[in-house]
Amino acid sequence: MTDPNDLGAFLNDAWQHLGRGVADARSPARTPTFATVAADGTPNARTVVLRAASQADSVLEVHTDTATDKITDLHHQPTAAFHIWLPKANLQIRATTSVTILTGAQVAEQWAKVPPSARVSYGTEPEPGHAISDAFAYEKPAEPERFAVLRCTVERFDLVHLGERHRRAIYTPQDGWTGTWVAP
Amino acid sequence: MTDPNDLGAFLNDAWQHLGRGVADARSPARTPTFATVAADGTPNARTVVLRAASQADSVLEVHTDTATDKITDLHHQPTAAFHIWLPKANLQIRATTSVTILTGAQVAEQWAKVPPSARVSYGTEPEPGHAISDAFAYEKPAEPERFAVLRCTVERFDLVHLGERHRRAIYTPQDGWTGTWVAP
Repeated sequence: MTDPNDLGAFLNDAWQHLGRGVADARSPARTPTFATVAADGTPNARTVVLRAASQADSVLEVHTDTATDKITDLHHQPTAAFHIWLPKANLQIRATTSVTILTGAQVAEQWAKVPPSARVSYGTEPEPGHAISDAFAYEKPAEPERFAVLRCTVERFDLVHLGERHRRAIYTPQDGWTGTWVAP
Repeated sequence: MTDPNDLGAFLNDAWQHLGRGVADARSPARTPTFATVAADGTPNARTVVLRAASQADSVLEVHTDTATDKITDLHHQPTAAFHIWLPKANLQIRATTSVTILTGAQVAEQWAKVPPSARVSYGTEPEPGHAISDAFAYEKPAEPERFAVLRCTVERFDLVHLGERHRRAIYTPQDGWTGTWVAP
């Protein structure tokens, strides 16, 4: 059993779950909640699919259609919060990130790897959120120029483990990710 | 089978799931993600427990410790986003809400109903998020003056059903909650 006071092991455990989310469609880390802030200051939250997680680079990646409200929000405030609750592990992962929006030639290699059946997620007409006359009055062409990769650099992790006694720690790059226990 | 174009049925379905979340600890609607915005414009997201859901009043309720970052954020920007993903129903519920923080005498009746075992969630010392020397260096007295009810009035629902073809609708009180289909 791991030492409950091992801050490094606690963070590594979170990164392992993130890696599993990328690899395993059934993992709850596959579909984080992704929160952004609209120009009027209102928070927005929605499900995203976790496409990449690199502990070495402190990066999480998500794909999106450039016509979604995520992009509008991120142009205004390029910061996003990831939230994942892992019921079996009793672990909550919160990550505050700085987001770079990559499109066009920057993501041509990644677009080439998107299966044709998934490409229709990028290009809905009319654009997502636009009123339509009935539930199915839209089309889903695949538009490579609507494909964006959100490269999210982690600025802060806040991990909570709900055990017999709860444990919570905060990690930042400023402390070399060594972390600090905080009251839960 | 319900008419897929029935906007009213779609919204009622969401409220039924919210009601089930309040009543059934195993429902995924029990533990929404709750997103707020910090004073510096950073989004924050964490799990909360849904304590009440009233379609008649358009209200969702959550309990919290007044010493959490939720409260700090809400004093700055009294708006919160709820996000719920219901895997079996393939339904995403997003609710944008205006939040009123109720404490003290306003919530004495609700505090009286909190079981003693749950009261320790309100009063952690040192306060949540404060650095501690090791993982368990905190105490959890029950402090009624730290108990807050967040009364969240829904200003907007954004519902997405992932079916063979996806359906998405937006509802606001301005249109009497009749709703509008939008491109997903």
